[in-house]
Amino acid sequence: MFFDSSWSPRFLPIAKLPGMDYRARQANLRATLAPHRLDALLVTHLPNVRYLCGFTGSAGVLLAAESSCVFFTDGRYTAQAHAEVQGARVVIARKAPLDRMAEWILAHRRNFGSRLGIDGEHVSVAAERRLRGTLTSRFRLRPAPPLVERARMTKDAQEIERIRKAVSLGAGLFDQALRMLRPGVAEAEVAATMEYAARQTGAEAMSFPTIIASGERSAMPHARASTAAIPADGFVVCDFGVILTGYCSDQTRSVYVGRPSDVARRIYEAVKLAQEAAIQRVTPGRTVGEVDRAARNALQKEGLGRYFTHSTGHGVGLEIHEAPRVAAGQTEILQPGMVVTIEPGVYIPGKWGVRIEDMVVVTETGCEVLTPTSKELIAV
Amino acid sequence: MFFDSSWSPRFLPIAKLPGMDYRARQANLRATLAPHRLDALLVTHLPNVRYLCGFTGSAGVLLAAESSCVFFTDGRYTAQAHAEVQGARVVIARKAPLDRMAEWILAHRRNFGSRLGIDGEHVSVAAERRLRGTLTSRFRLRPAPPLVERARMTKDAQEIERIRKAVSLGAGLFDQALRMLRPGVAEAEVAATMEYAARQTGAEAMSFPTIIASGERSAMPHARASTAAIPADGFVVCDFGVILTGYCSDQTRSVYVGRPSDVARRIYEAVKLAQEAAIQRVTPGRTVGEVDRAARNALQKEGLGRYFTHSTGHGVGLEIHEAPRVAAGQTEILQPGMVVTIEPGVYIPGKWGVRIEDMVVVTETGCEVLTPTSKELIAV
Repeated sequence: MFFDSSWSPRFLPIAKLPGMDYRARQANLRATLAPHRLDALLVTHLPNVRYLCGFTGSAGVLLAAESSCVFFTDGRYTAQAHAEVQGARVVIARKAPLDRMAEWILAHRRNFGSRLGIDGEHVSVAAERRLRGTLTSRFRLRPAPPLVERARMTKDAQEIERIRKAVSLGAGLFDQALRMLRPGVAEAEVAATMEYAARQTGAEAMSFPTIIASGERSAMPHARASTAAIPADGFVVCDFGVILTGYCSDQTRSVYVGRPSDVARRIYEAVKLAQEAAIQRVTPGRTVGEVDRAARNALQKEGLGRYFTHSTGHGVGLEIHEAPRVAAGQTEILQPGMVVTIEPGVYIPGKWGVRIEDMVVVTETGCEVLTPTSKELIAV
Repeated sequence: MFFDSSWSPRFLPIAKLPGMDYRARQANLRATLAPHRLDALLVTHLPNVRYLCGFTGSAGVLLAAESSCVFFTDGRYTAQAHAEVQGARVVIARKAPLDRMAEWILAHRRNFGSRLGIDGEHVSVAAERRLRGTLTSRFRLRPAPPLVERARMTKDAQEIERIRKAVSLGAGLFDQALRMLRPGVAEAEVAATMEYAARQTGAEAMSFPTIIASGERSAMPHARASTAAIPADGFVVCDFGVILTGYCSDQTRSVYVGRPSDVARRIYEAVKLAQEAAIQRVTPGRTVGEVDRAARNALQKEGLGRYFTHSTGHGVGLEIHEAPRVAAGQTEILQPGMVVTIEPGVYIPGKWGVRIEDMVVVTETGCEVLTPTSKELIAV
């Protein structure tokens, strides 16, 4: 069904999705403050803000205190904030929202304890200096553990439904790629067609710049689509994803243009078996490091271990790369609701590369592969 | 010529562009260190890294010391760094490049003075803590002024040539928009067509999510293209840009769908006159604040001042928003080679909005408007 000619780009109405329970998320977060000796958390990373209160704009911060939440944005987002934000009072700032938050905390200092957590990875040195200047010595700013990132690792039913829809829409783009992949076509032209189809079918955006890497470039794991023409013989790595209702998809297939040699077939099969071996290990209670090891061991057995030069996967959700990392030595324990990619690859420098990637969701008893696309070797 | 049917999407070969003089840029920066009492600058903001040494990847930092430069990236970018980076030694890190830089500085401490400048706006609190931990008390980290941003404000001839090409490619997309704009067509479908055409003509990416804002949404300056259908009567604000060879374009036109009333015509004309008045003021030696005031005064005279709710413009280059801000009270003095947008707008809440935006380059005697598109009111 790869060349399904019945597929036609059009705007699909997105079925009304069940709402997110932002208030429950805020309550869960607020309950973790006291055990971490915090009176409030200054939430500055936008995907965390969106996760907690629903705001989708590009400038906003959330103050999560033990008793309530307050959201700050600027005048560009007045209408949007009032329409989107749930469970938090909305304050419109005439300056940077984080600076306004600091003033607000100072003005309401009687309602606050003094221990304020900040996200050290997402607050700049300059912003922290301004915060300290405004808050004076009444308050103590301290780096907080990644409380929201930890909550986001485990997706709830509403999130998984959105991710399913994103994965399904994203997978449809591979059919578009297959129609285009032939010698002489520019990689960027394939990517352009896929991205156009994504927009036509309702995607908000691509979740990252589409990778169409052919010939020797397929051996570069992070090659983007270039203006180079696809050569007559070799693998083409297609790595792509969309954002739909805020959630990302991520998928890779490697297609052979021309007639694959026995070596090419053997390597493709080895990557496929390694990917399936890793998926087999995705079960609640196992560590992500074990999943990585399964893929690595499978490739090592085939003498290909040294050509697998990146980690096996990563969490996906509101961000294309989020916790947990599925990598060597990582000890995060898999839990139902986690959504990760499984994407081993083999890259022979100067020749070509193969990568196969699915998204999987951890279930009560194992995992479910979300990506519907076949993994059999396709030669075009 | 807005409905030029001779336009057909295809991949245009980008003429080989003259190289950037990265070594001169590094030398200029290094010469500013001593006057700022710095022995080295830790350059962490990627557009600054690209400006100084040519690296286009997504992870890399540059150490600019008084005598030499060293570039750090990770294993994904080994080949790319060696191919792209000029004027700096390349070090491949097995950890975060900034952490590797700190180790490198410590190992070469005899060659360094102790005063290291960091970019407080682009180094996180957590990264700074790791830096301090590695560097020990032998070194003093201090916030540096925006030395690279200041250099980037004034574009050299090679940069202006690239910006011209980006502006020209971007302007072509407006013809695509005009073909699509009619009642009932989804805003996102117009944006999708423009973005497809951009890719087909060689753009690397859009410089920001395309804004196609119709009906009441045209009164929201930051509306993105939605799945809403364009209504039968009203303005459609089209704000779009591309990235070509690293440099951004940015342009807005407001088209009337239907028959514009006298009030609509009057407001359009007022915005156009305000935009032209601001462009008139773009001359070396004037401040950006004076340019902003010219647009604001023109709209105030028409009784529309309070509907112009954002600043007049911003610098454009490797980033879509960079210094200088063309805004009220800003005192930056215009100099030949600066490239800014001039984009006043009028937004009547609940009704509609109009914005007109060109990019201009400051010349020795005034300025040159780079955007080739007509500003006459178009009704479709």
